[in-house]
Amino acid sequence: MKAEILCVGTEILLGDIVNTNAAYLARELAAIGVPVYHQSVVGDNPGRLEAQLRDSFGRSDLVILTGGLGPTYDDLTKETAARYFGRDMVMDESSLRSIEAFFKKTGREMTDNNRKQALIPEGAVVFQNHCGTAPGLALEAGGRTAILLPGPPREMQMMYETGVRPYLERLSGQVFLSRTIHIFGMGESAVEQKLRPVISKMENPTAAPYAKTGEVQLRVTARASTSAEAARLADPAVQQLSEALGGVVYGVDVGSLQKAAVQALRERGLTAATAESCTGGLVSKRITEVPGASEVFGCGVCSYANGIKEKLLGVPHAVLEARGAVSEETAAAMAEGAARLAGADIGVSTTGIAGPGGGTAQKPVGLVYVGVWSRWHREVLRLELARGQAEEREQIRYLASSHALHALWRTALMYQKERVDETVF
Amino acid sequence: MKAEILCVGTEILLGDIVNTNAAYLARELAAIGVPVYHQSVVGDNPGRLEAQLRDSFGRSDLVILTGGLGPTYDDLTKETAARYFGRDMVMDESSLRSIEAFFKKTGREMTDNNRKQALIPEGAVVFQNHCGTAPGLALEAGGRTAILLPGPPREMQMMYETGVRPYLERLSGQVFLSRTIHIFGMGESAVEQKLRPVISKMENPTAAPYAKTGEVQLRVTARASTSAEAARLADPAVQQLSEALGGVVYGVDVGSLQKAAVQALRERGLTAATAESCTGGLVSKRITEVPGASEVFGCGVCSYANGIKEKLLGVPHAVLEARGAVSEETAAAMAEGAARLAGADIGVSTTGIAGPGGGTAQKPVGLVYVGVWSRWHREVLRLELARGQAEEREQIRYLASSHALHALWRTALMYQKERVDETVF
Repeated sequence: MKAEILCVGTEILLGDIVNTNAAYLARELAAIGVPVYHQSVVGDNPGRLEAQLRDSFGRSDLVILTGGLGPTYDDLTKETAARYFGRDMVMDESSLRSIEAFFKKTGREMTDNNRKQALIPEGAVVFQNHCGTAPGLALEAGGRTAILLPGPPREMQMMYETGVRPYLERLSGQVFLSRTIHIFGMGESAVEQKLRPVISKMENPTAAPYAKTGEVQLRVTARASTSAEAARLADPAVQQLSEALGGVVYGVDVGSLQKAAVQALRERGLTAATAESCTGGLVSKRITEVPGASEVFGCGVCSYANGIKEKLLGVPHAVLEARGAVSEETAAAMAEGAARLAGADIGVSTTGIAGPGGGTAQKPVGLVYVGVWSRWHREVLRLELARGQAEEREQIRYLASSHALHALWRTALMYQKERVDETVF
Repeated sequence: MKAEILCVGTEILLGDIVNTNAAYLARELAAIGVPVYHQSVVGDNPGRLEAQLRDSFGRSDLVILTGGLGPTYDDLTKETAARYFGRDMVMDESSLRSIEAFFKKTGREMTDNNRKQALIPEGAVVFQNHCGTAPGLALEAGGRTAILLPGPPREMQMMYETGVRPYLERLSGQVFLSRTIHIFGMGESAVEQKLRPVISKMENPTAAPYAKTGEVQLRVTARASTSAEAARLADPAVQQLSEALGGVVYGVDVGSLQKAAVQALRERGLTAATAESCTGGLVSKRITEVPGASEVFGCGVCSYANGIKEKLLGVPHAVLEARGAVSEETAAAMAEGAARLAGADIGVSTTGIAGPGGGTAQKPVGLVYVGVWSRWHREVLRLELARGQAEEREQIRYLASSHALHALWRTALMYQKERVDETVF
């Protein structure tokens, strides 16, 4: 099966929105071993959409379309696909009831346009929309399959998860199961180089690395006739790959560094506090992204000014004078100060030069210290995060915040050891 | 002239990266009035790339390609385009010297592969790469023009600005000039509805609204034979549109809410401090995104716990008991506390329920109070930011931070009035 992705929407053609749907679908299809050789975008124009459908089905068996299922007059994807497949439009009573229920729930008034959303090409498979009104559809004929999904990313992703993935599984007679190994502290090419001998021989499951800013995710996907069997294939491979990677793995299916850190704190009944200079609040912002973070996090200080570092965090004036705000000693004092101020078990700090100005020969742009303080573990990391590119202030700040979150996570993990030690000795 | 965008890269096909290049180019081309009806993506595969070039030039005169200009064996865009146009590859001495200089500057070793990057199709126009090694190219023949740009977004964007835009101006004999009106507090459809009678009649300049989270940008683009003439066309239109929109405009070409706020503070010699609950540091993170923010911002507190609100910010225990942490009174006290703690002129605060949990009938998810305190102006905004969608915690937090930045900007602007008043009375 060869697939391609066809996104419909004038707002994408105009650059008003970035096409994240194509990336999401490409990744999902790659994970289940369906090759994708083309992505296309056309506007809300039936003539060009139909021409693109002809081109696409000339080289692929499966075309996944997104967008153009809305209630307005320029949403024509469904009608165009129906014409291409030679189908009439019929009212789908089940979709109509879902749309009515959606409007009742959200207290908004339903218009005739919304009734139009329940019209479907005769014989189409319907995918329910759990967070919007437009149902999704699959049309099959003569070995060609078109899958039509709504444009809003959240609706599209939820529909893929709940409807399309199971549909593709039925189509292929297989179940797909993915696990993601989260890696921090090793670049994508180093991961690839290290694992290539193993990955290149893998057939089921497969493994593919994805680079994120400062991180790599290694996605392991197994296919089998049941979920249990797929897990039996995937799990030993996840373990083997994680062991081969060693200490750079911070979790499997754990979501993000901030989720891993919050989870580690919560499991051990610990709390954390932050003191940020160069990251300016980004560490606390990322921690509080995690729902329920208030259980483990009560206080962050963005101490941009030296006076605040002294007054709130108790960084000694002499240290700031002798070593400067960007120094190992200041980072250590900030981390301790944050923990003491908040009465937290762990304090984590950042201080550095994010640029573009402020760098010197001794303390260049990109130099960042990350401090961690706790009763059982203290450390200061010295990082050089600049790559000499233009406009990298946000990149440096983001990487610094990731190192701080990783240090927080590691320190929380060490706490267990301490308790074990206390029991033993 | 009809244009299309053709992005080359297996990493896009696999969904490893989101195709922001297509959105950037689409927007730039829309701004200068070049219609784009198709975007495509193919992998690093010469056969499929050449087939796509044939398809694309069958319907468009200008094809802008990105990606595949790197030094490795699978970077084949240049060679494929040369073959399509029937050109030989020749060494471009000027590009070679640029690449050598780049490696000298960054202190890295230059390989034979990098020499390959200086090979260009005979007769091509070369665009210099100011932040990388691969030069860009334009190839023209028989009314068809291909423009080849590097894949890394920063290199691509800088090359577009410095090389491609002037090239397209020469091609069309016109200069293009864009101004962006920044709007906060009015949705995209309201902006469109309000301005449609005006915008739909505009020919030169044109105006197009773009929606960003919680904001709208209205881009006004004029074309003329000189920059001065283009400015003479654009500026009155910008003024007319801004006046029609009224108080929701917070600047022209000002970049972002945080840049506008930092600039307003700096111009008036004011300083600000933040106290954040539901936004968890996002307001201070956004302020400190702006280079040089340390001149106007010294301290932010993320007071997630009530104890910290009392201890650091001086929120009265009785207020927290009687009104709760999410209340008008707490927001006001937090803003004042932040300003007093930091010795700042303006304090800004956020407290609210970002969800997904924690909502009640009286205080639902999405309820946020934003407080501002200064000697000359105090206010508390009550916001309801939920839209009933799934996973909107980050959306609520971002919108709350935008309201806080907007309130900070407004309050800084009011300071001038006070000084005028003081002088008068």
